[in-house]
Amino acid sequence: MSKTPDWPRIAVVGAGAVGGYFGGMFARAGAPTVFIGRKRFSDAVNSKGLILDKSESQERIAATAATDMSAVRDCSLILFCVKANDTSATARQMAPLVRPDATVVCLQNGVDNANEVRAAANVVAVPAAVYVAVSVPEPGRVKHLARGDLTIGPPSERTTELANIFIRAGISCRISDNIEGELWLKLLCNCALNAISALGNVRYGEIIQNADAKHVMQDIVDEVLAVAAAARVVLPGVHDQASGMAAAMNIATQMAGAFSSTAQDLSRDRPTEIEALNGYIARRGMEIGVSVPVNHALFTLVKLAEQRRGTSIS
Amino acid sequence: MSKTPDWPRIAVVGAGAVGGYFGGMFARAGAPTVFIGRKRFSDAVNSKGLILDKSESQERIAATAATDMSAVRDCSLILFCVKANDTSATARQMAPLVRPDATVVCLQNGVDNANEVRAAANVVAVPAAVYVAVSVPEPGRVKHLARGDLTIGPPSERTTELANIFIRAGISCRISDNIEGELWLKLLCNCALNAISALGNVRYGEIIQNADAKHVMQDIVDEVLAVAAAARVVLPGVHDQASGMAAAMNIATQMAGAFSSTAQDLSRDRPTEIEALNGYIARRGMEIGVSVPVNHALFTLVKLAEQRRGTSIS
Repeated sequence: MSKTPDWPRIAVVGAGAVGGYFGGMFARAGAPTVFIGRKRFSDAVNSKGLILDKSESQERIAATAATDMSAVRDCSLILFCVKANDTSATARQMAPLVRPDATVVCLQNGVDNANEVRAAANVVAVPAAVYVAVSVPEPGRVKHLARGDLTIGPPSERTTELANIFIRAGISCRISDNIEGELWLKLLCNCALNAISALGNVRYGEIIQNADAKHVMQDIVDEVLAVAAAARVVLPGVHDQASGMAAAMNIATQMAGAFSSTAQDLSRDRPTEIEALNGYIARRGMEIGVSVPVNHALFTLVKLAEQRRGTSIS
Repeated sequence: MSKTPDWPRIAVVGAGAVGGYFGGMFARAGAPTVFIGRKRFSDAVNSKGLILDKSESQERIAATAATDMSAVRDCSLILFCVKANDTSATARQMAPLVRPDATVVCLQNGVDNANEVRAAANVVAVPAAVYVAVSVPEPGRVKHLARGDLTIGPPSERTTELANIFIRAGISCRISDNIEGELWLKLLCNCALNAISALGNVRYGEIIQNADAKHVMQDIVDEVLAVAAAARVVLPGVHDQASGMAAAMNIATQMAGAFSSTAQDLSRDRPTEIEALNGYIARRGMEIGVSVPVNHALFTLVKLAEQRRGTSIS
């Protein structure tokens, strides 16, 4: 009988919807997994386990959670799932605690996270383009709507080993030799959908049934592709404006029932990641000299709404 | 002793914030004024009078209100204050009831209302560019924040007489020989401010303290001016993008404490006038072949938010 390889000890840093889902998949598969998150989450998981709601099933998974970063000490695989805004600060906090041979996988929105983690914590950081529609209807409960796969890169012994670990936990994982392009492809989809879902208060499926909203999506996509071209980034499978739009439409179709994470954040009075999404395109476009009025307008509106969160018209 | 001229009998059609304010000024001056509005408004005014809240005073004005359009029958001056979306339908409803010698003044947002009223009701309709920041915190109460003046045109015996009647009621009124340009100038200010205030949930004063929001305003202004130029409309006092921006900034400064009417509508789950504002520029721009991505995006987002009003993220 061949021996099953041991699991690495796994820490989930930033246990929100994405961290809860992927960490939950590992815990469910029997890997020693600790979730590091807010007290409400941690208390809920330690007392009742992590509840993983899927369309076909509901599972209660025994899991350990902590609020203190020192829980990363023994872990050799770190699923890094904090909001893009918090990447550098969290990585700095993690730096003195993390094992030097640990691998940090950035399951985050935005294209710069792995670079920021490397710079702040001097560890191996692997970027991942994540496609999953999940939400957290209450602390300790993760509701899965669609997909749940990731692409990592570049190809190496380390990423091959990593992909095998993910796949062993039931998580579909691909290795790409153009991971930067993959992250930009995810960014393109985020830019095209997140702010519209948030500002219009609509699900992805409602966006793509609306001719005007699709027109706005196309304007966003065109701007993102112009910035990508100027930055010499090649998005896999995207060779023109129509195929860029098709990629975003495809995501919206697969996740038709989902509100964007930006919509979820705004509706819960939490900071959004808009700086790393339409805000990133707006900044890069202005630096490079590419016209980005729609991305800039959406960034600005989400930012205003975020700063006014919790207040209402008198 | 010279005899004071008689007041015309006045009907306010569409007694919201703007109708309540200007009708209230007439009622306050002693003009026989009837407000035609929703039952909640009508009941409140008939039982307690119209309350006019100004920064320096609060007045309770005895006034008559009705819910039925037949109240226009005896009136020779009609202040037409319905939402721009309702212009044609309301004018058609009014057509068989209105006196043939009546004058309808359109105190509305948008540039096409007087034409629509003429077409639908075959009456004299005078367009007015109205500048006033008002809200209705409760039925029958009108809260005045800033300005309260209007521009009508073109110059004629009728508009001269009208202006004198407004001025007699304490309402500042100017006559312009470029009323189309005046309406577009108001439209430019509405386009630059209303949707940002609504989607960002911010007052005008907060918009103009935010560098990104001012950048979005400028993008909107540039698009409006490009459409105006293609439509051969000359906006008074606006000779370039900077002076267009200055006009919008000026309004935002004067009305710093105000939320736009679009913001008020969205927050109260009411239809907005966005079709006649950024939506008008988006439509005209696309017809003429002028690029209008920001106006189109703002129109689309307000429209989505409006259609989803009353619902929330689960």
